[in-house]
Amino acid sequence: MRNIRLKVAYDGTNYHGFQRQIETAGPTIQGTLEKVWERLVEEKVTIAMAGRTDAGVHASGQVVNFLTEARIPEDKIPKAFNSLLPKDIRILLAEDVPWDFNARWSATWKRYDYHIDNQRIPEVFTRLYSWHIPVPLNISSMREAAKFLEGRHNFKTFAAAGGDSKTFERTLYRCLVRADQDLIRISCVGDGFLYHMVRIIVGTLADVGRGRIMPGEIPGIIESQERRQARLIAPAHGLFLTHVNYTVESPFEIFPDLEPLI
Amino acid sequence: MRNIRLKVAYDGTNYHGFQRQIETAGPTIQGTLEKVWERLVEEKVTIAMAGRTDAGVHASGQVVNFLTEARIPEDKIPKAFNSLLPKDIRILLAEDVPWDFNARWSATWKRYDYHIDNQRIPEVFTRLYSWHIPVPLNISSMREAAKFLEGRHNFKTFAAAGGDSKTFERTLYRCLVRADQDLIRISCVGDGFLYHMVRIIVGTLADVGRGRIMPGEIPGIIESQERRQARLIAPAHGLFLTHVNYTVESPFEIFPDLEPLI
Repeated sequence: MRNIRLKVAYDGTNYHGFQRQIETAGPTIQGTLEKVWERLVEEKVTIAMAGRTDAGVHASGQVVNFLTEARIPEDKIPKAFNSLLPKDIRILLAEDVPWDFNARWSATWKRYDYHIDNQRIPEVFTRLYSWHIPVPLNISSMREAAKFLEGRHNFKTFAAAGGDSKTFERTLYRCLVRADQDLIRISCVGDGFLYHMVRIIVGTLADVGRGRIMPGEIPGIIESQERRQARLIAPAHGLFLTHVNYTVESPFEIFPDLEPLI
Repeated sequence: MRNIRLKVAYDGTNYHGFQRQIETAGPTIQGTLEKVWERLVEEKVTIAMAGRTDAGVHASGQVVNFLTEARIPEDKIPKAFNSLLPKDIRILLAEDVPWDFNARWSATWKRYDYHIDNQRIPEVFTRLYSWHIPVPLNISSMREAAKFLEGRHNFKTFAAAGGDSKTFERTLYRCLVRADQDLIRISCVGDGFLYHMVRIIVGTLADVGRGRIMPGEIPGIIESQERRQARLIAPAHGLFLTHVNYTVESPFEIFPDLEPLI
């Protein structure tokens, strides 16, 4: 029995999330991958994924794994998958990994990036990949607020109901707000994320950018542990799962652009 | 009677070109704009466009104009249009212009940009906006070939049948090949373009990049004035109409990144 790890990129626009559902509302990433594997080698497998992205969320660096009896060499797997997959899903890499590797549980940290299009008139070519906010946002306030979110906290305020997490303690190594003209990118790197956590963080930072919340209110909002304190949830289509890490290297070694936490 | 000029951006993926057709194969940009204007002010107009983009071609700077009796102020026009247009078409600017302005005939020069995704595995997020060529292209050969295309030539070799041009003489002020990692951008700036001309130029440059044509063969290919000499036509979905100019300023004053012609 082999354990295969895949690195996967997908455009989430046409998918109802990652996880296969019993009564499907539509195609899922997991279901599509499992079906293609079955067509390739006539074997039913269950694919485990690092981050269970919601409907409409994208990934440039999702990681999955599955156990198989197939003998196809690892370097032939991406091409085989890609020949049958729809064009909005691509396998970037396949590797044989130890039997006890699990894409979700073996992860040391993950990186998500969120894109906001802050032009008055939305950009047509990124409309499916960013949240359009026509009102100019105050970037320095957002940056100040983001700093308060970094570190180890109980993130219950930022967790939607419906998640399966037993604890709400997580470490957010970095929450970085950057602006390149009217494109705002928010990068979140942490050891784990609660259900909808990044989207609730982004929604809250957008409220800060609009002046509805002051940066100094963030510590109190975290401490409250009440979901309604965080208000807005940012739409799914601006969110990307960028990277899942399995080594002991720190996020700042892998992504020097994130600058170390001070 | 007023003459209104609009700057328009659109994602051409779901459109059968710009020009309204008698027996439509599907929606067109022109037809969609005319219908929305009719809904807005109950007036039928005919919209003239600067560049008649083919099915699937995109625009970030298309320009159109139309004559109207409506009294809506120019600064209210973009918002009015955008409230009824599908999200893949946006009006960026509206201005009152002199009665004799025509988006097509008044243009002094135009800029097109073409994107090639030269990674082995295609990028999912730009798959609708670039031509995927998995074989690594030789950029310096392409650049050398592009230089031969610049200047005033008879471009009959690079014109598809079906255009309505009476002459084939055009000036290509700039044909610039740039690479940013695996994304190759080809910018073409000229006083006029024949039917499919940019796509045939890009197809030819791609053949140069693959080593099928030597850069030194380009002058002979131009002189031949035979369409079959240029072979490949690049797909529509990598092409963007970026800018239409109406002033006497040179392309290098408007786009310093294009560097002057030597």
